[in-house]
Amino acid sequence: MIRRYDFGIPFPTEAVVLDLTPNPEPLPHFTKKGTKLNFFLKLERDTVVYGLGESNRGLNKRGYLYESFCSDTSTHTPDIFSMYGAHNFLLISGKNTFGVFIDCPEKITFDIGYSDYDDLKISGESTDYTIYIIEEDNLRSIIRSFRTLIGESYIPPKWGFGYQQSRWGYSKESEFYDIADQYQNLDIPLESIYMDIDYMEAYKDFTVDPSRFPNFKTMVSDLRSRGIRLVPIIDAGVKIEEGYSVYEEGVEHGYFCEDETGKPFVAAVWPGRVHFPDFINPAARKWFGEKYKILTDCGIDGFWNDMNEPAIFYSEEGLEETFSYLDSIRDTNIGIKESFGMREAIENLSNNPKDYDRFYHNHNGERIVHRKLHNLYGYMMTRAASEGLHSIQEDKRFLLFSRASYIGMHRYGGIWTGDNSSWWEHLLLNIKMMPSLNMCGFLYSGADLGGFGCDTTYDLMIRWLQFGLFTPLMRNHSAISTREQELYQFSSTGYFSKLLKFRYRLLPYLYSEFIKAVKCHEMFFLPLSFEYEHDSLSRSVEDQLLIGESLMSAPVYTQNAAGRYVYLPESMLMVKFDSRLERTCEILEKGHHFIDLSLEEFVLFIKRNKFLMLAPEANNTDSLDCTSFEIIGYSDKTDVLSYDFYDDDGISSKVDLSSMLQVQISKKDSVWKLSNQIPQIKITKIDIMEASVY
Amino acid sequence: MIRRYDFGIPFPTEAVVLDLTPNPEPLPHFTKKGTKLNFFLKLERDTVVYGLGESNRGLNKRGYLYESFCSDTSTHTPDIFSMYGAHNFLLISGKNTFGVFIDCPEKITFDIGYSDYDDLKISGESTDYTIYIIEEDNLRSIIRSFRTLIGESYIPPKWGFGYQQSRWGYSKESEFYDIADQYQNLDIPLESIYMDIDYMEAYKDFTVDPSRFPNFKTMVSDLRSRGIRLVPIIDAGVKIEEGYSVYEEGVEHGYFCEDETGKPFVAAVWPGRVHFPDFINPAARKWFGEKYKILTDCGIDGFWNDMNEPAIFYSEEGLEETFSYLDSIRDTNIGIKESFGMREAIENLSNNPKDYDRFYHNHNGERIVHRKLHNLYGYMMTRAASEGLHSIQEDKRFLLFSRASYIGMHRYGGIWTGDNSSWWEHLLLNIKMMPSLNMCGFLYSGADLGGFGCDTTYDLMIRWLQFGLFTPLMRNHSAISTREQELYQFSSTGYFSKLLKFRYRLLPYLYSEFIKAVKCHEMFFLPLSFEYEHDSLSRSVEDQLLIGESLMSAPVYTQNAAGRYVYLPESMLMVKFDSRLERTCEILEKGHHFIDLSLEEFVLFIKRNKFLMLAPEANNTDSLDCTSFEIIGYSDKTDVLSYDFYDDDGISSKVDLSSMLQVQISKKDSVWKLSNQIPQIKITKIDIMEASVY
Repeated sequence: MIRRYDFGIPFPTEAVVLDLTPNPEPLPHFTKKGTKLNFFLKLERDTVVYGLGESNRGLNKRGYLYESFCSDTSTHTPDIFSMYGAHNFLLISGKNTFGVFIDCPEKITFDIGYSDYDDLKISGESTDYTIYIIEEDNLRSIIRSFRTLIGESYIPPKWGFGYQQSRWGYSKESEFYDIADQYQNLDIPLESIYMDIDYMEAYKDFTVDPSRFPNFKTMVSDLRSRGIRLVPIIDAGVKIEEGYSVYEEGVEHGYFCEDETGKPFVAAVWPGRVHFPDFINPAARKWFGEKYKILTDCGIDGFWNDMNEPAIFYSEEGLEETFSYLDSIRDTNIGIKESFGMREAIENLSNNPKDYDRFYHNHNGERIVHRKLHNLYGYMMTRAASEGLHSIQEDKRFLLFSRASYIGMHRYGGIWTGDNSSWWEHLLLNIKMMPSLNMCGFLYSGADLGGFGCDTTYDLMIRWLQFGLFTPLMRNHSAISTREQELYQFSSTGYFSKLLKFRYRLLPYLYSEFIKAVKCHEMFFLPLSFEYEHDSLSRSVEDQLLIGESLMSAPVYTQNAAGRYVYLPESMLMVKFDSRLERTCEILEKGHHFIDLSLEEFVLFIKRNKFLMLAPEANNTDSLDCTSFEIIGYSDKTDVLSYDFYDDDGISSKVDLSSMLQVQISKKDSVWKLSNQIPQIKITKIDIMEASVY
Repeated sequence: MIRRYDFGIPFPTEAVVLDLTPNPEPLPHFTKKGTKLNFFLKLERDTVVYGLGESNRGLNKRGYLYESFCSDTSTHTPDIFSMYGAHNFLLISGKNTFGVFIDCPEKITFDIGYSDYDDLKISGESTDYTIYIIEEDNLRSIIRSFRTLIGESYIPPKWGFGYQQSRWGYSKESEFYDIADQYQNLDIPLESIYMDIDYMEAYKDFTVDPSRFPNFKTMVSDLRSRGIRLVPIIDAGVKIEEGYSVYEEGVEHGYFCEDETGKPFVAAVWPGRVHFPDFINPAARKWFGEKYKILTDCGIDGFWNDMNEPAIFYSEEGLEETFSYLDSIRDTNIGIKESFGMREAIENLSNNPKDYDRFYHNHNGERIVHRKLHNLYGYMMTRAASEGLHSIQEDKRFLLFSRASYIGMHRYGGIWTGDNSSWWEHLLLNIKMMPSLNMCGFLYSGADLGGFGCDTTYDLMIRWLQFGLFTPLMRNHSAISTREQELYQFSSTGYFSKLLKFRYRLLPYLYSEFIKAVKCHEMFFLPLSFEYEHDSLSRSVEDQLLIGESLMSAPVYTQNAAGRYVYLPESMLMVKFDSRLERTCEILEKGHHFIDLSLEEFVLFIKRNKFLMLAPEANNTDSLDCTSFEIIGYSDKTDVLSYDFYDDDGISSKVDLSSMLQVQISKKDSVWKLSNQIPQIKITKIDIMEASVY
């Protein structure tokens, strides 16, 4: 049951797709104080609080404070309150279990046992918002119900599940060819190469620098013929430059956010001074979205939208304040106060909340200050792109994901989890964040594998890829000036080749489970506690994830570990892969286990009476054969195991579960065999392990 | 066996106390390249590299890069290369097992499987250094041998083992009284309160601000009479101010470091412009050390030396460069390059390596650029303090510890581990760092409990104290502007009271083991792999520590954990304490265990045929009764358990193991009894658990 409660005059965020009638009764569960957003709930000692999508810390959000305020956070230390997304959904699992979604585009603070370990406080300045309370029989059905409310998640093309290579700094044609050559010469799979900001001419959106990319269209098609796609970045800010058509059209039609005086607001990002398109304005959205055609006409069919919190390096006003402070101290005996003051003055230049009070959106002729709609900006930029791409070619799926987001945007694109670092801690954060994102509708997602900031190491790269094997977006991305981490940069590359080929072996299963999760409003990554809700130990397991209906992943995420502990809420089949990706299988009983896993070893688990379909190895989706499978499974008491397998051409926008195939493996005369006729599928090997105790 | 190898003309760092003859043969184990410090060693895949004292990451240093370069690192993220100490000792445990100590006061880089996972590279610019190679039968004896080489570690007074409260920001008399009141009113133990920089007049060393502390001497004795000591900070930089005697004397006698032209070098720290005492010069050391008398005359008997890397906020030259860069860009279209440039210009102001080339030390009349002696600065400041305090009262132990350090300084004082953050990750770092510090002679040490930077939480404070129970220095310290974390700041304080009273119950054991470790050159915190060297699983356990001869600690260090896994290399007695500090005991077998531990529960383990002596509860060392004990132990097959118990008056500088008492518990007629007559000790209860299988 979903109940809607309106407060004030909520802004139409279009986060939800169901038009529910507001409930006139007081909001249940919470105590409300004052007129502003201010809700209180007492937590029992063992209450677990899930949710908040892209946010810091654990799967259980208990014990810290989180701010929903889309932020360009360049360093994801454990103390940060905000990240790029604003996903105001909580799932409270205690004596009372329910979901709560606060549809409000302004900043909201979630104090979840931070000020007081036993108190939950939700607060903000807004007086206009909608709250949805979702109550169902169990955790999974609450999520299903919530996801029905917010509508079906974005589906990428199948090639979006391939292995992708990125780095901030690729800046000329020859580099892209070189990356393709290096991967292909070493027989390491590669699906796409990303174009970060340096492909543009002076960081101008929808331009390609002609001196560094003299034959862009040819390059796109050359690489495409080798199975590799290019994915350019699009930034939110439009450079102020006479003669640059995007700038001039935006000014002419009033498509940019305005300052207090009605002039286009000036902020600065990569190119220096820019204007921000007013994505709240549908006309501006349409205009900007159609610009993507400039690149799709060159053969591009995937994009990533960046800096759309929006990130601001400085505003004119901020710059003036900073320099004026520096002038005031430069000739003094700069001591403790001024030393910190200088540092703060520079730090406060960028992403300063004061700047979000300095520009305005046009909503049907009404002027609304940005701060009040802040969390919608990246969402509406990506919606612009999605609708633009749909208008360019409506029967085709484009790859599209964003940095900033809000619930609702999940219908238009995925997200990557932003500028993490090459820290083992961020591999663990990646693991913990995935199910939280899924709860909020963000299914197409992944972290920068190997880490974006700081210098990665060989062992971290390996362990991160061993988890990245399972994330829908599997992209290796790093920052300029950090250690290069394309897989051919390491002295030993053979293992990477084998590991990525295994990604393609898994891909049909991952794709099938992904599409089913989208269509059935299920999670792709599921915490143990959602499946084994009455197993109390499962509630504190945050480093093992169920993936679709058959798998559990238990990655190693600590440096120099000789293995890891795994908790099994029920008996499962352990499948351990060695450095040659050869496997050994063992049935493990319910309970605690320590699994030896040297650096080049990883493990996955198959649930009882489930199986996994593995395709033949491949180096990209072009050459992936999704019709021929090897089967690994675990049977307990059942003689027939079945799996609903979804597949399609991977590119057309029509995605329909009615074409799903049921694969049935049954045991006859002590041998497991394919029991039904599936003309499209060939099973090359069946390896079902049986529990010895019946 | 210790062998010494000299290269060039090594500076007499006085890191070691044994005068060995240099070995003329080539250095074993390593391949040397070129004339500079540059050594290479191939690592086997399972080689573990221990050491490096105060440094980032794990107990096993494999897989990352570390720089020995005393650094004021304000944020201990997992990517930083340097911390405050320079502890150039490695213990390589592989096919060849040996210790190596590089006695060189310049920067050294340890690439331990970072550039290539299988390579160890040690490099630096120096051509003048000594290398010691230590080979013995096992890991512990290598450490004993190394510690014999570098001499006996500093011993604090017994009160240094009490619970200590600190915070940057305490700035007036009433605050100190208030802290004492709050703790004592809530019956929470308290041994001392720290005075951070704000007690001084304008941040001038050896001053106490008379307006904020009008009756300093009275305050010291008032609090002392309540069992509480005050511990003021001393900074390295001396404020440039006419009429300030420390400044004037230093200038007059030439005790400050000089710039290229021979004038006292100007840098800036808290007070703005300062000069740095030239601690390399014995006369300057003597002069500075005797200044501590100004405070000991007020009743102070403990100090912490800070900012002695030395930290530099800026130099005149750096400030000029920064402002000149800012001037050059302020009227341009500041874009990507300049935005990062501004940030860098400000960041590079502080602790800029270039500044360490801008001043000089006087070593017996020879002028040596600071960079070449950098890592000795904090060491020699603390040596100055130690020798000064000894000259003030030679029969007394003073509390003394430092931020920056070098091996050799361990004979003069302890260290705290600097500006950590209120991150769960830093609780784990604290656990992993303790044994590494012990290897290098730093036995009196601890981290800022609850975390220095960022905002702590109730649960983190509890878990950190549960580990802090065992660290010799047990101090809660936090930064200005962060959440207040004195234990009375939390809504529920009863547990803290019980927990800290338990610290005093443990204190006689901790003190006894600490003194024995100092005198016998043993480690106080021991990794499992050092005790169970042939148990291969022990080699990767980094989150359990042996403490002295009887105990093992296995703290919980993750938020919202319901417990933790523990690996036992042999059967041990698990002693679990509940929220009332009541215990339950259980013998656990060798192997892996999951232990349920809710927030207010912790566990310790007693080794086989060992016991723990617990004193009665106390609120400070003044009221601690070290003659009356309860005994908890675990007997396997033995009928007599014995323990060598050391105790003394806790304050006199003579510390002698010959006064040790052997406590023998023997089993007669099925009852465990004290078997020997120890007139000084009363045993109130004996609780020995026996393994059921004999």
